[in-house]
Amino acid sequence: MIRVTIWNEYRHEQTNPAVQEIYPAGIHQALAGFLQEEFEVKTATLDEAEHGLTDNILNETDVLIWWGHIAHDEVSDHIVEKVKERILDGMGFIPLHSAHNSKVFKVLMGTRTGELKWREADDKERLWVVEEGHPIVNGIPEVIELENEEMYGERFGIPKPDELIFISWFSGGEVFRSGCTYRRGRGKIFYFRPGHETYPTYYHKDIQQVIRNAVLWASPEQGSPELKLGNVQPLESR
Amino acid sequence: MIRVTIWNEYRHEQTNPAVQEIYPAGIHQALAGFLQEEFEVKTATLDEAEHGLTDNILNETDVLIWWGHIAHDEVSDHIVEKVKERILDGMGFIPLHSAHNSKVFKVLMGTRTGELKWREADDKERLWVVEEGHPIVNGIPEVIELENEEMYGERFGIPKPDELIFISWFSGGEVFRSGCTYRRGRGKIFYFRPGHETYPTYYHKDIQQVIRNAVLWASPEQGSPELKLGNVQPLESR
Amino acid sequence: MIRVTIWNEYRHEQTNPAVQEIYPAGIHQALAGFLQEEFEVKTATLDEAEHGLTDNILNETDVLIWWGHIAHDEVSDHIVEKVKERILDGMGFIPLHSAHNSKVFKVLMGTRTGELKWREADDKERLWVVEEGHPIVNGIPEVIELENEEMYGERFGIPKPDELIFISWFSGGEVFRSGCTYRRGRGKIFYFRPGHETYPTYYHKDIQQVIRNAVLWASPEQGSPELKLGNVQPLESR
Amino acid sequence: MIRVTIWNEYRHEQTNPAVQEIYPAGIHQALAGFLQEEFEVKTATLDEAEHGLTDNILNETDVLIWWGHIAHDEVSDHIVEKVKERILDGMGFIPLHSAHNSKVFKVLMGTRTGELKWREADDKERLWVVEEGHPIVNGIPEVIELENEEMYGERFGIPKPDELIFISWFSGGEVFRSGCTYRRGRGKIFYFRPGHETYPTYYHKDIQQVIRNAVLWASPEQGSPELKLGNVQPLESR
Repeated sequence: MIRVTIWNEYRHEQTNPAVQEIYPAGIHQALAGFLQEEFEVKTATLDEAEHGLTDNILNETDVLIWWGHIAHDEVSDHIVEKVKERILDGMGFIPLHSAHNSKVFKVLMGTRTGELKWREADDKERLWVVEEGHPIVNGIPEVIELENEEMYGERFGIPKPDELIFISWFSGGEVFRSGCTYRRGRGKIFYFRPGHETYPTYYHKDIQQVIRNAVLWASPEQGSPELKLGNVQPLESR
Repeated sequence: MIRVTIWNEYRHEQTNPAVQEIYPAGIHQALAGFLQEEFEVKTATLDEAEHGLTDNILNETDVLIWWGHIAHDEVSDHIVEKVKERILDGMGFIPLHSAHNSKVFKVLMGTRTGELKWREADDKERLWVVEEGHPIVNGIPEVIELENEEMYGERFGIPKPDELIFISWFSGGEVFRSGCTYRRGRGKIFYFRPGHETYPTYYHKDIQQVIRNAVLWASPEQGSPELKLGNVQPLESR
Repeated sequence: MIRVTIWNEYRHEQTNPAVQEIYPAGIHQALAGFLQEEFEVKTATLDEAEHGLTDNILNETDVLIWWGHIAHDEVSDHIVEKVKERILDGMGFIPLHSAHNSKVFKVLMGTRTGELKWREADDKERLWVVEEGHPIVNGIPEVIELENEEMYGERFGIPKPDELIFISWFSGGEVFRSGCTYRRGRGKIFYFRPGHETYPTYYHKDIQQVIRNAVLWASPEQGSPELKLGNVQPLESR
Repeated sequence: MIRVTIWNEYRHEQTNPAVQEIYPAGIHQALAGFLQEEFEVKTATLDEAEHGLTDNILNETDVLIWWGHIAHDEVSDHIVEKVKERILDGMGFIPLHSAHNSKVFKVLMGTRTGELKWREADDKERLWVVEEGHPIVNGIPEVIELENEEMYGERFGIPKPDELIFISWFSGGEVFRSGCTYRRGRGKIFYFRPGHETYPTYYHKDIQQVIRNAVLWASPEQGSPELKLGNVQPLESR
């Protein structure tokens, strides 16, 4: 059974009553709610020791989901480094929404992934599928409509995605590459845009389906080739 | 000097007064109007002998621009084959707007490039730059706004572009991959969406700048390596 | 259970005693031998009616494997078209070795995929994994060594692969992109180089493992979004 | 005129007589020797103040070439950060050979780019062109043969290149992705493998031609769109 760890900054929910009302037990628990039907789910939050990401937890995680927003800087560089190395070793990674600006995503991408347009103004968002036949879009319609969301607009400071799965349309006139896959080392990464803390986005059944699909897609392969790196002897004599 | 041939179906302009008013001498002449300031420009149309694409013309063309819409089927397979081969040999190719469904583009892509959503309803279109630093976006703003255009919406039946340069937003709620590059053989291809015949799109200075940039980008390299293909002798003895 | 159809030209095995000795029942039966342990396997050959690819067979095929060499031209364009459409609708496609020059692969790629260097001279081949963590390389070593194979060398006339999985080294001094994935429409395509008819390549356990993995990877997704294409009404009023 | 800065670690040349004999004035001067025929060239080395990369120098550099090997760790993180930001702003970057393990390349790629196989054993190397029609391969043959070089072998710990230009064959049995392009922000990056300090590789005319082509390709675009990022007002009212 795939082992999922959901990491959440868990700050807005404790300080903002509007957020608390939507996600009373935290965004991580809302995500856990539907993911645990299918996967073995743990949660971890910023204010736990080692942000809840001890070596034991990381070593027993197949796919790490990440939600953060106002406290990216409080995530210790030491933990960021360990998470990054685990991803390169094969752990799946699914940064959600404002995790575009998380330290882990930034060091993996190497670019200014924090750069984009944004607006908190109850925009309507439509996520259009552009890669039909991809496992991440199984069981969803060709467009997901979110009545109210924060807007993120291009130009988004990412490297070209390996696969572009969704493009968002916003009522205010912007577009956004909303679902992007990357391979890094043995790890599979899926950035998925929706999920501002003041909207009930993670209760939307199609959004849930995408995240469920992404967990399946991002889970590590069994039996990747063992590499012999460094100084090696020739296989042929000259 | 780069030699550009502009191919136009040239039918709407002769039968539809509304189109005639916008493009009295044909879309090809409107395109020639601004391209000839910088390039050596020829035009060719469907109803000329060999559709105006004789061997001589093709052999002296560095970049071929293509506009077609209602008469794709009238383009002879023999000419399609010759144009395709010239592109694989290095001629640049810029299919515009409804040329997404042209025979040449279809055989080069191998997919159902005619498949997309469309609507003729005076939608507003915004073309957002998603690949900053690409030569095709030199000298334009981060978004090009077209007050009225035909809508094309995803899912567009193309293979994944090598580079996705523009994404369009439409007032009716759709998005579209509006500027896409492909390398095929030695040839460079740039599909560019705007330009429905009932709108004055090709007089828009930013649209003109994109097409101008695309010609520069798509022109053939000088000195591509000479390939020895087929049956070859070993370079090393075993 | 995934339904695999193995298509084989099946000519060399009936006319060349050296090939017959290696593959007495045909290459298709050698492939079926190890694939049927895991999948529901059918075979089809050139000289059957409709090349064995009736509508019924195609409609009940999840993944089509293709081996052809000297008789590509005898494959009817009508069948090629049907196979292509099925792939765009989601059927997986695995062209092996000289199927680089098959009609189906050529129309899907749009380029001169028949162009490459080749030599029948008992070259040694090493296939190096370059995309670790991909499902197609599960359970194999970092390099597969084939003591004797036909050589295929660059420049191979393909479009850039979506994913480059293997690069081959040949004792005669050449290299080749030996394992390439493409998405086209809803279909997943994996070109895999090894398998000249005069060598027992398809009995090699790592080669078998790659083909087995490729079948799993290329099998159609369940529940791809239903697309509404063509003329559509706006989702927003302007 | 394109302004090139060649950065060199410049240590081997001062301590190893064998290297000194090949590159008496340093690898940077050997590179400058042929580049200054066409470009405005400066050099900078590790032991200069700020490693020779002051703000003034960086701001007046269009393309930065980088050679480093045994002293990557001595490059200050502060300078690495500034170089990275300049690249994201549009400066071209050409890491050569062992600069695969330089801090700048590592932070831009986000992966373990130091991971590969290597061997100093006078291997023969052949660099095969796999992307014909790319500006980086203008004026060179389809294969560049280097009689003696250090071997680098797969699996190389890079993200998938945007474009794979060269694949190397080594006499010892290995292959390597030897010429790789990436876009990051507005910057263009070309990693090029050859150039171990104990071989006269940078005097080879085809290697020189590739580096010359790469400088032209990587030089910044003029007139990239000005982006408005951060919090923005809607373009449409809802």
